[in-house]
Amino acid sequence: MEENAPMIATNGGYIVTRIDGREASELRPVRITKHIQQGPQGSVLIEMGKTKVLCAATVEDHVPPFLRGTGTGWLHAEYALLPSATAVRTPREAARGKQSGRTQEIQRLIGRSLRAVTDTAALGERTIILDCDVIQADGGTRTAAITGSFVALTLACETFYKPDRPFPVKDFLAAVSVGLAQDGTPILDLCYEEDSHAAVDMNVVMTGAGQFVEIQGTGEGRPFTRLEHDALLALAGSGIDSLISYQKDVLGNFLDWRVGRIK
Amino acid sequence: MEENAPMIATNGGYIVTRIDGREASELRPVRITKHIQQGPQGSVLIEMGKTKVLCAATVEDHVPPFLRGTGTGWLHAEYALLPSATAVRTPREAARGKQSGRTQEIQRLIGRSLRAVTDTAALGERTIILDCDVIQADGGTRTAAITGSFVALTLACETFYKPDRPFPVKDFLAAVSVGLAQDGTPILDLCYEEDSHAAVDMNVVMTGAGQFVEIQGTGEGRPFTRLEHDALLALAGSGIDSLISYQKDVLGNFLDWRVGRIK
Amino acid sequence: MEENAPMIATNGGYIVTRIDGREASELRPVRITKHIQQGPQGSVLIEMGKTKVLCAATVEDHVPPFLRGTGTGWLHAEYALLPSATAVRTPREAARGKQSGRTQEIQRLIGRSLRAVTDTAALGERTIILDCDVIQADGGTRTAAITGSFVALTLACETFYKPDRPFPVKDFLAAVSVGLAQDGTPILDLCYEEDSHAAVDMNVVMTGAGQFVEIQGTGEGRPFTRLEHDALLALAGSGIDSLISYQKDVLGNFLDWRVGRIK
Amino acid sequence: MEENAPMIATNGGYIVTRIDGREASELRPVRITKHIQQGPQGSVLIEMGKTKVLCAATVEDHVPPFLRGTGTGWLHAEYALLPSATAVRTPREAARGKQSGRTQEIQRLIGRSLRAVTDTAALGERTIILDCDVIQADGGTRTAAITGSFVALTLACETFYKPDRPFPVKDFLAAVSVGLAQDGTPILDLCYEEDSHAAVDMNVVMTGAGQFVEIQGTGEGRPFTRLEHDALLALAGSGIDSLISYQKDVLGNFLDWRVGRIK
Amino acid sequence: MEENAPMIATNGGYIVTRIDGREASELRPVRITKHIQQGPQGSVLIEMGKTKVLCAATVEDHVPPFLRGTGTGWLHAEYALLPSATAVRTPREAARGKQSGRTQEIQRLIGRSLRAVTDTAALGERTIILDCDVIQADGGTRTAAITGSFVALTLACETFYKPDRPFPVKDFLAAVSVGLAQDGTPILDLCYEEDSHAAVDMNVVMTGAGQFVEIQGTGEGRPFTRLEHDALLALAGSGIDSLISYQKDVLGNFLDWRVGRIK
Amino acid sequence: MEENAPMIATNGGYIVTRIDGREASELRPVRITKHIQQGPQGSVLIEMGKTKVLCAATVEDHVPPFLRGTGTGWLHAEYALLPSATAVRTPREAARGKQSGRTQEIQRLIGRSLRAVTDTAALGERTIILDCDVIQADGGTRTAAITGSFVALTLACETFYKPDRPFPVKDFLAAVSVGLAQDGTPILDLCYEEDSHAAVDMNVVMTGAGQFVEIQGTGEGRPFTRLEHDALLALAGSGIDSLISYQKDVLGNFLDWRVGRIK
Repeated sequence: MEENAPMIATNGGYIVTRIDGREASELRPVRITKHIQQGPQGSVLIEMGKTKVLCAATVEDHVPPFLRGTGTGWLHAEYALLPSATAVRTPREAARGKQSGRTQEIQRLIGRSLRAVTDTAALGERTIILDCDVIQADGGTRTAAITGSFVALTLACETFYKPDRPFPVKDFLAAVSVGLAQDGTPILDLCYEEDSHAAVDMNVVMTGAGQFVEIQGTGEGRPFTRLEHDALLALAGSGIDSLISYQKDVLGNFLDWRVGRIK
Repeated sequence: MEENAPMIATNGGYIVTRIDGREASELRPVRITKHIQQGPQGSVLIEMGKTKVLCAATVEDHVPPFLRGTGTGWLHAEYALLPSATAVRTPREAARGKQSGRTQEIQRLIGRSLRAVTDTAALGERTIILDCDVIQADGGTRTAAITGSFVALTLACETFYKPDRPFPVKDFLAAVSVGLAQDGTPILDLCYEEDSHAAVDMNVVMTGAGQFVEIQGTGEGRPFTRLEHDALLALAGSGIDSLISYQKDVLGNFLDWRVGRIK
Repeated sequence: MEENAPMIATNGGYIVTRIDGREASELRPVRITKHIQQGPQGSVLIEMGKTKVLCAATVEDHVPPFLRGTGTGWLHAEYALLPSATAVRTPREAARGKQSGRTQEIQRLIGRSLRAVTDTAALGERTIILDCDVIQADGGTRTAAITGSFVALTLACETFYKPDRPFPVKDFLAAVSVGLAQDGTPILDLCYEEDSHAAVDMNVVMTGAGQFVEIQGTGEGRPFTRLEHDALLALAGSGIDSLISYQKDVLGNFLDWRVGRIK
Repeated sequence: MEENAPMIATNGGYIVTRIDGREASELRPVRITKHIQQGPQGSVLIEMGKTKVLCAATVEDHVPPFLRGTGTGWLHAEYALLPSATAVRTPREAARGKQSGRTQEIQRLIGRSLRAVTDTAALGERTIILDCDVIQADGGTRTAAITGSFVALTLACETFYKPDRPFPVKDFLAAVSVGLAQDGTPILDLCYEEDSHAAVDMNVVMTGAGQFVEIQGTGEGRPFTRLEHDALLALAGSGIDSLISYQKDVLGNFLDWRVGRIK
Repeated sequence: MEENAPMIATNGGYIVTRIDGREASELRPVRITKHIQQGPQGSVLIEMGKTKVLCAATVEDHVPPFLRGTGTGWLHAEYALLPSATAVRTPREAARGKQSGRTQEIQRLIGRSLRAVTDTAALGERTIILDCDVIQADGGTRTAAITGSFVALTLACETFYKPDRPFPVKDFLAAVSVGLAQDGTPILDLCYEEDSHAAVDMNVVMTGAGQFVEIQGTGEGRPFTRLEHDALLALAGSGIDSLISYQKDVLGNFLDWRVGRIK
Repeated sequence: MEENAPMIATNGGYIVTRIDGREASELRPVRITKHIQQGPQGSVLIEMGKTKVLCAATVEDHVPPFLRGTGTGWLHAEYALLPSATAVRTPREAARGKQSGRTQEIQRLIGRSLRAVTDTAALGERTIILDCDVIQADGGTRTAAITGSFVALTLACETFYKPDRPFPVKDFLAAVSVGLAQDGTPILDLCYEEDSHAAVDMNVVMTGAGQFVEIQGTGEGRPFTRLEHDALLALAGSGIDSLISYQKDVLGNFLDWRVGRIK
């Protein structure tokens, strides 16, 4: 473990050989393409390496029964893999008649994360549905879905925003996976191959203010120490900084300026 | 009705004002992009105007129980709309726990159509699954799915083809919708807006040899005459000719030459 | 194929040996028995040879939510095989927890066909449910269900009809199957044995005015030519003529006269 | 209550006015028609007044996994109401995606009752499925289903019976409903109208030897006394005697003689 | 059978060797512990030997749609086995996605039995849900559930009872199983081992007034005679007397006095 | 926030007023009762304050298909709330026909956590099912389920353990919830009332060696800082220390000594 210690401190100073040639602290190439569909109020295609997720934000002018008459809105997410998105075909959930536990866990995570930066009072009595459909899966689909959905959500809110109210999106939000390779090296933004061999896997969701919204760390292969945990959080933080910086470019000055506007 | 009579005879000689400026006998712009995904053995994105369908052909090395030991293969199709594909969001079938009757009807049509040009003995004991996932729906998704799936299927068969056996794809296959507008004009390749106002709607699937594989005509708004029926079939035939010609371009000489090879 | 050509022209002049001794253009013996059940407003048992379908039309005094307050009615159909209706027992769909794709496709076809001759405004805010339960299946259950449902529907409409309004049934409607035998002979009203060996299978639904409501032709065994297609349509037309003539006998003058009455 | 006391003792000596003019201890007209379907090995239509149930016995040459290799057979029953069988239409269970508790309770009762007179060792490794589909429901469908299934089962066993083994049906079996009317009168074979007003309802299944296989008595409207209970059992016994006598007529000497044959 | 004859007459005078050393007419040790949970208005743990059932009565201030505005309440029961309650683990019904026929039959029995002693008008527009969850199953879970639910129901009714109205519970109610051992001995309150070998099995539900609410007798192994039936009913009656006496102790004078109060 | 700073450092030196009078760093009273059921190889009732969870470990002598012939075992968990376990009744999942997303997420967490300390090779080809059924829910049911399941698992492994192999349980394991109250105070082992008002909620699973198996932190009310996160982890660590110490007492020297034995 000795040789990893410096890297933990410097967050990627050492060059590690990863399957795709990246450094340990390097994100895969990221691209967010806006307005990919006509129907939804906001939609983007987010690509992180070979992982491609279509994120669509639909605005509906009603809320679930428990919110009727409260003036408050709601937001939830749905997630699916296209059967053809994976290396080995994934059976279609609609044909099997139910969503897997994995699917439900992921869509609950996406919804919860986006709600953390949404001012539901500012939504008014609207429901926003975030549909995250994975076109190609190469690891990190849930974190890509969160990062992309943030942009789709912001685009969608712009369609009904009236300047005399707070903008419904309170802060930037992005997510990334980090993990410990078999040899203990902390690595950023794992592809599928890395993920399936990782000793420890962690998904982190953070705001533009640098605070945590979700931390989900799992010692799949073995338990992990506090020192390892701290290294993973640091690595995630640097990755999320880059992603939020890119989100701002994608949204452009006009919308970047909206996020977090109280009035 | 008088003024349509000549057009029925000449199949589109008159210029009709359609919602998107096309002539009555004109297809929307078609584009087929190959190798859109990494997992499936064959995959394409087919675009017909704003309708976009991802067609993936997965090859699995086993067959359903009733074919085990027969040396014969199988092929079936699955179809879905992304919830965000439509102007008004479509509820997710996996969340509702079952596929609609419409979905099942369409995927049965796609599978049946492609089986008509598949030599299942030449497949060997393999199953081919055609996943047709609609990214954006603007009318004609089932016919686009058939036209695109044909290309995906051919690409997939190439991956396991051995030259001493017949190629499993026996002939070209494409599909198109035709219909009668409210005023009785036969029109080709209806977009959603046209489809929802059509008096009569027909989907036609034909082979490279110009024969019929499926004809499904429905008088949704009113019954239709034999003369109208004949005009629709003629219009469909010309559209399918163009589509098969384009499929040959997309596959290129090498694969074009394979289709229908006995040995 | 030469010897079939005249038959195509004359629609049944040649004697073909069919499994049950019929000529190629001959229907099986048809019988429609009215008022077979006490509960539904209209009910019949239709027998076409050994195929027996119980068709019941229930009138309910409400409509689906999307029609409330419009003054317009609705009609839909449900279809099932009794498990004991087939030569080899068919597993019960209620026990399996879902309707098969075949069942859903058939009940959509029946509903769509009957709606084509129903004046939903004349129904008022009523829903008519057509239950088609197959007691014995020997081919052609969906077409028998349509032909029988037409009579059940007319009987049911009579129960609430007020003479100062249009009668809700606008025209007669019947359906029949046609197909191409292995040797290319076009045959009418296929029994199960013929159907399972047919090269091409077509279901045709037509009105009393001789127009088409549905054409569903499938080249299960091989694609089919335009000439074959025309022969099939002609054969279907003659079969449907006979069926509608019989429906008129069954309904009797009084109700025959109602169908299509504007006021 | 005074005036009923003698009748309880004498089991129907008094004439009571019932909705259909029957005496308290009188069965409705019963008719069993054999060989109603072609597919199943045994099938009958049983009519008790307006209640009509189609009972089919299918023989399959395999058994559930827990019996494989034991040489022993199995028997189970399935039950359904056609949606059109009732005065007010019953929603279709296949469309709702599950069988109701009532349906499951009834089919468990039918299966258990018939197994009580079946020698499963004599069946060999065969499964018999009894499909009981109610064509018209006017009370007593479960008891009619048992009485009719007995005949269907016997017909089915004859199809594979070899004279050197015991016949798989060990004794006759029939069922009937009895109940207490609002005024406390015990009545036999309740129609729907009587059943829905009865204070107490009881279904009784008995053998040809006059022994009980099932007694299910329910005080829906009020609890019942031991004296009332005894009157109901006596009434049921006389009804079942008549039904078994009729079953023997229906089966004829040849099969009557088979039932209970050890060799 | 000779030696059993006297016992049938005297209902337990002879000492029979049972698996747990009880006499034939002896109940297992019974214990009802009140207020076992905080959430429900009434809750008890009932133990009959090793059988342990948690019975909870929840009061909800609304009724099903068909009772709205009638001033009348409703009561229904739900039943489940914990997967770990049985000697061999029982698969979880929620994971399988449906309740078994056995579960539905039992919960219908429990609900029907308790409704027989409930004055639904006195409930007002409230629904009482009885949840019977079996913690450990050793035979007789449905009868224990009824006996325990009665106490939970009474506790729950006390929480909303106003002295100027009738108390909603009209009479005491308990249930017990009886059966015939292989040798024909009638035995009371069968444990699982006895139940799985019994020739005849009967569940009896009776009121404090000694009347029957439900009798469900099944000749699983063989049919049974009227004499055997009478012996079983007598045995059940004595067992239920003891159980109701114990229920009164458990409820205490104050609530015992409530049951059946008209005003 | 100022006044909390010292407490973050000292981990509970200050007295905070909690709803049940505990200090911020104080666990609720914990009790684990072993051998609560007869069927499962291991079973315990764990109580943490008013939260009560029955944890049962069943050993089955087979493995899922993907492990057959590998000599390796499997472990999974199932979780449910009794409907009566919550203050407001929770609808029964078996009756609704599916498990909620929350249920699936929790049972995946429990299974994953326990697998982290299980040597599946040492299990041999056995499957262990952990059933966690919540009898009463007052917050922290998933963490109580993990802590209790560890004991049930150890008891179950003892039943088939042979001393010449490694013991299948590699290390101790316990879980606890921590959170930030509205005023920012970090608190340990939240009851339901505290949980529903918490700004941040975190579940932590740790081993006897003090390493992390799972960290799931969620900013439900607001994002949280790194400082807050560190305070929560420290608090969780102290709570888990106490829980593991108690587990050792419960298991006793003999079994305590087994855990982690290589041979």
